[in-house]
Amino acid sequence: MPDPVTTISAYGARAREASRALAGATAAAKSAALEAMAAAVDGARAALLEANAHDMEQAAAEGVSGALADRQLLTDERIDGIVGGLRKVAALPDPVGAETGGWRLPNGIRLQRMRVPLGVVAVIYEARPNVTADAAGLCVKSGNAALLRGSSYTLRSNLAVGAALRAGLEEAGLPADAVQVIEDVTREGATALLTATEWVDLLVPRGGPGLIRAVAEDATVPVVIDGAGNCHVYVDAAADLDDAEAITINAKVQRPGVCNAAEKLLVDRSVADEFLPRIAAALAGHGVEVRGDDAARAIVPGLAPVADEEWDREYLDLVMAVKVVDGVGGAIEHIRRHGTGHTEAIVTNDYAAAQRFVAGVDAAATMVNASTRFTDGEEFGFGAEIGISTQKLHVRGPMGLEALTTERYVLWGDGHVR
Amino acid sequence: MPDPVTTISAYGARAREASRALAGATAAAKSAALEAMAAAVDGARAALLEANAHDMEQAAAEGVSGALADRQLLTDERIDGIVGGLRKVAALPDPVGAETGGWRLPNGIRLQRMRVPLGVVAVIYEARPNVTADAAGLCVKSGNAALLRGSSYTLRSNLAVGAALRAGLEEAGLPADAVQVIEDVTREGATALLTATEWVDLLVPRGGPGLIRAVAEDATVPVVIDGAGNCHVYVDAAADLDDAEAITINAKVQRPGVCNAAEKLLVDRSVADEFLPRIAAALAGHGVEVRGDDAARAIVPGLAPVADEEWDREYLDLVMAVKVVDGVGGAIEHIRRHGTGHTEAIVTNDYAAAQRFVAGVDAAATMVNASTRFTDGEEFGFGAEIGISTQKLHVRGPMGLEALTTERYVLWGDGHVR
Repeated sequence: MPDPVTTISAYGARAREASRALAGATAAAKSAALEAMAAAVDGARAALLEANAHDMEQAAAEGVSGALADRQLLTDERIDGIVGGLRKVAALPDPVGAETGGWRLPNGIRLQRMRVPLGVVAVIYEARPNVTADAAGLCVKSGNAALLRGSSYTLRSNLAVGAALRAGLEEAGLPADAVQVIEDVTREGATALLTATEWVDLLVPRGGPGLIRAVAEDATVPVVIDGAGNCHVYVDAAADLDDAEAITINAKVQRPGVCNAAEKLLVDRSVADEFLPRIAAALAGHGVEVRGDDAARAIVPGLAPVADEEWDREYLDLVMAVKVVDGVGGAIEHIRRHGTGHTEAIVTNDYAAAQRFVAGVDAAATMVNASTRFTDGEEFGFGAEIGISTQKLHVRGPMGLEALTTERYVLWGDGHVR
Repeated sequence: MPDPVTTISAYGARAREASRALAGATAAAKSAALEAMAAAVDGARAALLEANAHDMEQAAAEGVSGALADRQLLTDERIDGIVGGLRKVAALPDPVGAETGGWRLPNGIRLQRMRVPLGVVAVIYEARPNVTADAAGLCVKSGNAALLRGSSYTLRSNLAVGAALRAGLEEAGLPADAVQVIEDVTREGATALLTATEWVDLLVPRGGPGLIRAVAEDATVPVVIDGAGNCHVYVDAAADLDDAEAITINAKVQRPGVCNAAEKLLVDRSVADEFLPRIAAALAGHGVEVRGDDAARAIVPGLAPVADEEWDREYLDLVMAVKVVDGVGGAIEHIRRHGTGHTEAIVTNDYAAAQRFVAGVDAAATMVNASTRFTDGEEFGFGAEIGISTQKLHVRGPMGLEALTTERYVLWGDGHVR
């Protein structure tokens, strides 16, 4: 068996070659390819379900169960979702080729700055076979070759999805190697991918904190981190408390396991007596375990205490910690210390408080009188997202097709020299 | 003496705190600060020259001489350059606060995407004390705190420049810690800075290949690589040979030691007999050592041979390697194998050849009938540059003030929930 570095280099070289054809493909050709990929997945249901059944059996034999096992399950309905997702991306506008700037230099040279694909995009992900198709679709639409590395538990399912996608690409006249599912799912294979600087122009990890940490520490290829969201809702003295309740409940319970769910509630001291008993009851009514700092527990005695380290923790569950703060300044101070730069929200009808919160908080998204749950590529109108960046470099917040592109300059001269 | 990680963390914490004041500073306040920094450097000439004399003495004692020693020398004229550079940056438009996108979501939420500072920008650089002021000026203008880590040889000079800059900041009412020259110039200190993910939002290395490689390998903080420029000039069959000669000479000899100088000349076979003897003589007349592949040497017998590895080498000197290629396709193929993605040029009057070259080459900048030397922040009209990115993530090509910013979203709702 070849060593992982050689294996990954071979994948990389094929991806690089395919990326050149993709970079030159027209919007129409790429849309047609995505439609063909969707049709191929649609037509490969039997193969997909059979491969997935094997994965599920193996997972069960290895003791994987519950939510983890469910995440890797394919059903006819989930395959519908994959097919629909590819068709939706097919219909999105092509981000490639846009002129993002252009001017004439003083010497007469005409300069154009234009959007081009990154080249080869690698995605490392866990357990959900739909990510194979979602990521491949976004990469192909944005003109990039995709290197997809899922988890060992889902390898058969991912390969089956990959085979269908590749068949679709070939049918549409684009190289099959524009989408490659990496078969080497060893730890050494992952390390080889994380350090394949010759081949990988961008790596996006999609998974839990362990995966994100490993990528952040070991990757030498360029990475965009889809990191933790320890999101806060701050209820100001001038909040409409009905809005505050609706936003808090929505931010916490609508989908508690995702990164844009709220984890912490900050309440201004002047409205704590009125708001805390009300929101504690409402949250409890939605099955949320509410914990509080000393001041909150003095107002609502039933609350569980909060350990210091919890202020930095992303529960990703029906748990919310409540803290009483002194005004916008107190909220900003707390968020600066404990926020992860994902999404922060204020509920207020006070102009100055809203302005101060927006200026004082540094996050990918800041919400004024809206739920943290709106930080999302679909909600923002990007049509689809490959993740939500919590880093500041390259792209911040929801990553749509544009996040998978870069820019380059072309200068048109007439024998110009300096 | 505290350990380097503790030391760097203390610098980082002070920079983070200062960055908040800078992020909120108006364009007027930042311009005034840059003017005050310029005046302070201007007024600190004696201290600067004295500190530099110590550095020069120590360097001489340690056997540093020639170009390396000259690079760290400060003179009255070079201080004029530093002062003028700061004043020039003071006058540039503020990149912060621009709304780079804005729309209304279907549910009525108003979304704004706006340009904000990155936060803390670290620069690791070698030997030139003017980089201390240049980098500090660009960081402050773009609202970022700067952590500046020069080489041990230049520490006294850098600290003297830093002291003047900090005095200027304070006089203008901005925190002195917006600019910090790091005194720990040990290897361990560098490693601590390269891995200070809590404090550093962007690190830019400015220096030779050794520094760049070390940063690329060891940094876990976000980095923009100002990498090698193995730039090519391709002379097409349909080139105006006068233009071809002027562009080749300019690209090679105007400033051979910089990354946008041309290192390789590719000549289409059909014009090689005519062009090669002429350009070889012209280059030799400018003191360039011309080397050639077998085909070139068959036409111009006097040329030295080219070792295989040289096709990947950046000479940064008055040396140029010449290769005969088969048309645009041959040029593209060679550049794909050996280019570094910096700048590639074609000389042609053929529309199809120009289009094919532009489509087939993937570089930060592609020149049609213009010298590679135009890839430059000043030439592009950015007013100043902190480097030239050869990576695809975040920013590609000359990095001006915008490259030191990121974007964030602010969403204005009215009690909106999902």
